[in-house]
Amino acid sequence: MTPRHEVNNPLVCIIAGSISVAKFAAKAEGVLIEFKIPFWSHALSAHRTHSDVAIVVRDARVLGVRVFIAVAGMAAHLGGVIAALAPAHVVIGLPTSDSAMSGLDALLSTVQMPLGKPVATVAIDGGENAGLLAAQVLATDPNLVHIQEGLLRRHKETAAKIQEINCELGKCGSFTEYIRLNPPKPKG
Amino acid sequence: MTPRHEVNNPLVCIIAGSISVAKFAAKAEGVLIEFKIPFWSHALSAHRTHSDVAIVVRDARVLGVRVFIAVAGMAAHLGGVIAALAPAHVVIGLPTSDSAMSGLDALLSTVQMPLGKPVATVAIDGGENAGLLAAQVLATDPNLVHIQEGLLRRHKETAAKIQEINCELGKCGSFTEYIRLNPPKPKG
Amino acid sequence: MTPRHEVNNPLVCIIAGSISVAKFAAKAEGVLIEFKIPFWSHALSAHRTHSDVAIVVRDARVLGVRVFIAVAGMAAHLGGVIAALAPAHVVIGLPTSDSAMSGLDALLSTVQMPLGKPVATVAIDGGENAGLLAAQVLATDPNLVHIQEGLLRRHKETAAKIQEINCELGKCGSFTEYIRLNPPKPKG
Amino acid sequence: MTPRHEVNNPLVCIIAGSISVAKFAAKAEGVLIEFKIPFWSHALSAHRTHSDVAIVVRDARVLGVRVFIAVAGMAAHLGGVIAALAPAHVVIGLPTSDSAMSGLDALLSTVQMPLGKPVATVAIDGGENAGLLAAQVLATDPNLVHIQEGLLRRHKETAAKIQEINCELGKCGSFTEYIRLNPPKPKG
Amino acid sequence: MTPRHEVNNPLVCIIAGSISVAKFAAKAEGVLIEFKIPFWSHALSAHRTHSDVAIVVRDARVLGVRVFIAVAGMAAHLGGVIAALAPAHVVIGLPTSDSAMSGLDALLSTVQMPLGKPVATVAIDGGENAGLLAAQVLATDPNLVHIQEGLLRRHKETAAKIQEINCELGKCGSFTEYIRLNPPKPKG
Amino acid sequence: MTPRHEVNNPLVCIIAGSISVAKFAAKAEGVLIEFKIPFWSHALSAHRTHSDVAIVVRDARVLGVRVFIAVAGMAAHLGGVIAALAPAHVVIGLPTSDSAMSGLDALLSTVQMPLGKPVATVAIDGGENAGLLAAQVLATDPNLVHIQEGLLRRHKETAAKIQEINCELGKCGSFTEYIRLNPPKPKG
Amino acid sequence: MTPRHEVNNPLVCIIAGSISVAKFAAKAEGVLIEFKIPFWSHALSAHRTHSDVAIVVRDARVLGVRVFIAVAGMAAHLGGVIAALAPAHVVIGLPTSDSAMSGLDALLSTVQMPLGKPVATVAIDGGENAGLLAAQVLATDPNLVHIQEGLLRRHKETAAKIQEINCELGKCGSFTEYIRLNPPKPKG
Amino acid sequence: MTPRHEVNNPLVCIIAGSISVAKFAAKAEGVLIEFKIPFWSHALSAHRTHSDVAIVVRDARVLGVRVFIAVAGMAAHLGGVIAALAPAHVVIGLPTSDSAMSGLDALLSTVQMPLGKPVATVAIDGGENAGLLAAQVLATDPNLVHIQEGLLRRHKETAAKIQEINCELGKCGSFTEYIRLNPPKPKG
Repeated sequence: MTPRHEVNNPLVCIIAGSISVAKFAAKAEGVLIEFKIPFWSHALSAHRTHSDVAIVVRDARVLGVRVFIAVAGMAAHLGGVIAALAPAHVVIGLPTSDSAMSGLDALLSTVQMPLGKPVATVAIDGGENAGLLAAQVLATDPNLVHIQEGLLRRHKETAAKIQEINCELGKCGSFTEYIRLNPPKPKG
Repeated sequence: MTPRHEVNNPLVCIIAGSISVAKFAAKAEGVLIEFKIPFWSHALSAHRTHSDVAIVVRDARVLGVRVFIAVAGMAAHLGGVIAALAPAHVVIGLPTSDSAMSGLDALLSTVQMPLGKPVATVAIDGGENAGLLAAQVLATDPNLVHIQEGLLRRHKETAAKIQEINCELGKCGSFTEYIRLNPPKPKG
Repeated sequence: MTPRHEVNNPLVCIIAGSISVAKFAAKAEGVLIEFKIPFWSHALSAHRTHSDVAIVVRDARVLGVRVFIAVAGMAAHLGGVIAALAPAHVVIGLPTSDSAMSGLDALLSTVQMPLGKPVATVAIDGGENAGLLAAQVLATDPNLVHIQEGLLRRHKETAAKIQEINCELGKCGSFTEYIRLNPPKPKG
Repeated sequence: MTPRHEVNNPLVCIIAGSISVAKFAAKAEGVLIEFKIPFWSHALSAHRTHSDVAIVVRDARVLGVRVFIAVAGMAAHLGGVIAALAPAHVVIGLPTSDSAMSGLDALLSTVQMPLGKPVATVAIDGGENAGLLAAQVLATDPNLVHIQEGLLRRHKETAAKIQEINCELGKCGSFTEYIRLNPPKPKG
Repeated sequence: MTPRHEVNNPLVCIIAGSISVAKFAAKAEGVLIEFKIPFWSHALSAHRTHSDVAIVVRDARVLGVRVFIAVAGMAAHLGGVIAALAPAHVVIGLPTSDSAMSGLDALLSTVQMPLGKPVATVAIDGGENAGLLAAQVLATDPNLVHIQEGLLRRHKETAAKIQEINCELGKCGSFTEYIRLNPPKPKG
Repeated sequence: MTPRHEVNNPLVCIIAGSISVAKFAAKAEGVLIEFKIPFWSHALSAHRTHSDVAIVVRDARVLGVRVFIAVAGMAAHLGGVIAALAPAHVVIGLPTSDSAMSGLDALLSTVQMPLGKPVATVAIDGGENAGLLAAQVLATDPNLVHIQEGLLRRHKETAAKIQEINCELGKCGSFTEYIRLNPPKPKG
Repeated sequence: MTPRHEVNNPLVCIIAGSISVAKFAAKAEGVLIEFKIPFWSHALSAHRTHSDVAIVVRDARVLGVRVFIAVAGMAAHLGGVIAALAPAHVVIGLPTSDSAMSGLDALLSTVQMPLGKPVATVAIDGGENAGLLAAQVLATDPNLVHIQEGLLRRHKETAAKIQEINCELGKCGSFTEYIRLNPPKPKG
Repeated sequence: MTPRHEVNNPLVCIIAGSISVAKFAAKAEGVLIEFKIPFWSHALSAHRTHSDVAIVVRDARVLGVRVFIAVAGMAAHLGGVIAALAPAHVVIGLPTSDSAMSGLDALLSTVQMPLGKPVATVAIDGGENAGLLAAQVLATDPNLVHIQEGLLRRHKETAAKIQEINCELGKCGSFTEYIRLNPPKPKG
């Protein structure tokens, strides 16, 4: 069995189906860190370590976790399995694109849950959005009003950054000129 | 402008993009009624009554709404528009299948939200699941622990019903015999 | 918990995710009955009665079941969950079309299993083929050579029926004439 | 709020949902520059800077803009939001492919607009075609007959270039020989 | 050859690829009639009556037509062919769903036009939207300001109708009650 | 084995994978009858009567058949199997829509043939087009010039019928009026 | 206008929609060269040089061309346009994958031709198969029996090459060992 | 004809449609080698060496093969052809992604088998899972109980490896930190 990690009063439990999707889970963590939301991270497969997932979900519920984030690709069953194990909790499903089907398989496996067991699905590879949705869910608790403030502040900052780019673009007069002055950086 | 409906302290605001998807919204309401969660329902289009949606979202926030449910088909922008207007709130997207694309268009328009603005998407035509997800979100507030209890009770009741069918099936010995004794009712 | 059905030494365990897909499970049973293969049928949801599925899988293994057939639609996780619980057993996945996505969701959720846990997937709504595949799997045991004979006999009978139609067609001279003489029966 | 760029009597307003799709917007600008059509470019997100989009659309209408071009990927709502805000204007939607779904999401989110609010959609990543469509729309005004002439001239020039290649190919006698003499340049 | 219909100064020319898609063309006409925009309607196939299409396009240009609407299903080439024949005109493509592919074939055949020849595509089966887009295009001419006024008036009327439904819904308090009082009419 | 039908010097051999797709094969026959092209029809499955298909293909080659038409749905292998057995012959593949995937499976199984073995694929359910393509292939033989003439005559007749409808439409002035006077007949 | 290339009695006319798909056309030419089938190659767009295509088709018919090959991507109308212009000729459609949709758009635009005008479609990017299909079509003429012989010889040679690899594999005993000894060459 | 490889009592026969998919076949072999299951490997195309496939299937049956694995891409008919030739045997289909359609074509061509001839399909490019499924099938024979033990041991080892990673992750406290310490290796 998986030894229990020490963590203080986590509100969110992130489970990634394999270490290959860790980078998307890390994006979700980034948001939680930003909002000072304690979380508990695991890399466990719904298929290859089924009973460990059950133990983690049980422990997470005992520890006071309110939201689960399931990160998985291909026939992504992780969200559904957690939803089955924690029927009164919010389960966020983050489908990933690491398959021949480019994530269509993971998206449909995550979102098309049958009657009675929803999984709150975000965009394919949308790690940051999974973190934000977890924050929004927690922010419905009036005692966690600081998260709501954080979300509004973040919204304003994002808007400000976009407006800055827009101003810069306005000075350039066109996207053509803007790109000439700010050539996109090569990826990687 | 849309006259304001009277409603007492709604926690959930449901907006359907048109009256033709009302039946899916009603499914979501059914769950909220079951859990005694006050809600506020609107039939307003993100495209045809854009400013009314903005007013309703603003009013809903003032009234203490914590979760929005957007019900829409085709190029379903309603969830995204609400997410833009209520950046610290949970927005649940319920895509519907009333189009030539059988809901693939509504699903992708709802779930594939860009970085920063998640919409918590449930299955195509999954009205009941949208209501359950709203209940799960509200149940993260320790003061609304009765919702959590309701969800667990519902989970047990559903399981009991399935077990009852399974017992019946066990007595029959096969699906073949079960269907013979319990022929499916014609639809409609 | 689901009371245990009485069944004598089942070789195949069929689990249907809901009673709405019973007709496809019955098609699979039809083949097993034809080949005198004892089977054990259940209607249990991977999501709504998760622990019952675990109990049935455990009991089935104790009873000597060699092959599982999972019948499920939408985000069809049933096959994957059984594969997780019975890592040395054959799990046949039968995706069904009862969703807005016409079964593409169930197909991808069933077949696109990650590394290590295969689910042997057959065609959407292919109940009879699921039964035949179970028979083929059992027929690999030299002690069950009668199943192999049954499969070969069935193959010949099917071919004979097609040849009969083909002869009839040959006498007609054309499909046009054949249809005129043998108009297709209205469905339902 | 976004400071207003100075621009003289723009006829076209281009809004890109993010700077990452700027290169497609620049392609559209290229055509407008070629035809001496004044335009006004913005990089604003329908989701992250919703109210700025509303202000730009209002200002654009005041400034005499006749056509909008919305450039966006994923759940591309920008075209629909502009269509909602400018019900008597032409809105051209340019879906982009920068997502796991390769633009199928952006295409369906843009083109599948509900009854009453069309968005004139062009091919995925078809920046130049968006610019050409804007020119064609403006050319319906008899006072802008020079644009029509420009379009016909461009049509002839393009045809001439193709005919030149075709002549060259005719001299080679085959594509095989043509490629040998004119090897394709490596991309990037 | 097709005899020339008499029509007075048409601004829009509608061509339907076959009479089986006439109902969608009629929806487009409905909008044009509403706005008193003269139009010229044809039922001609790009494949089966190729040269007639060329003649109609030529005649339409002579008659002063500013916008074409192409209505076609399956491998819908009609919009592309008109775009090839009228390089300075706006061509609106209306893909229809009358095929095994439910219109995905018609959508991609219409919208994915190569560089240089845009077809302004609207939703599958979106006849009314095709008419509205034609009106929006014409309304860019300052001399046709009455069309712009008509579009704004229509926008308001549609919004008013939706608001009326929304009021009614408000009185009911829920979609559940609304549907009970206003049961949907059976189709056909 | 299938007894050999009597047929005089067939030029086309039609094989349908099952009697359920006979109606599409009959459409192809209709064209061949129209052009007085002798044909030889079979209902044999590539999977269930594999060796019979081999015998028919061999016999067909001996009898002078020049073109095969394979009619099949789902994982439509029939065209590929015939192509494997008759490497110097034209094989026309006619995919049918009788599956949960609406024919996308049959289309891809038919058209996506690997290097070396083409199957000339026509539209899903396009029985008449399969017959016409067979006629076009045969018409490449200068000794069968009458087929070419038949094809040109048919082309003219089809065009004439469309022109007649177009004239009728011209008299009506609009699709709206045309439909009112010529309401579509109910299907079936 | 495109000057006429000199070519002696071509039997096949290849038209590529743009020079960017020349490599697929060259693959088709390779087969024709192998079988000593004279051909006539053009790079002309159905949309950008519509009338040139019409001239080439007319000239090709005069020169005795029996088969057309249309090579095109995106909304690939070239095959359909040629089919419209040459109603008694075989038109082979070769869809290419150079688009965001990876060729699904080109495939559906080519194969889903409406009633009356088939385009014989081969696999996406299947240049060699397009050439082989043209050879098979020509080989139906008894006077071109050498092509049939060439096809059979080619079939044997391909089979012999595969058998050689298979023998080599047999000596290795496994794919694992075979790959170790024959590592795949890096692409490009 | 292909000379017969020497192999001792193979239980599994792997046939790859071409050498280009050898790497996926090698993955399947890896599992069989791990479990000491004797196998017989071939590289033969269902289309280009149809009769050799028939010979190999016949010989394999004589040699006591119980399970076939068919590895093929595009219009993957290999599994279906083997299923037709060995009606009492298990045929595992392994679709590969080496096509413009990224394996959707191979998946549908493999899994959507018509009534009567199942092919047990695994994930696209899922070579290891094909090997595991073969092992699971063989393990249904009580005389091959060591394979079942091997499967259970492998299951435990895989789980242990995942738990080790999970422990490591627990010490790091987050995916973010884990990735910093264990940066993913560049591919290839």
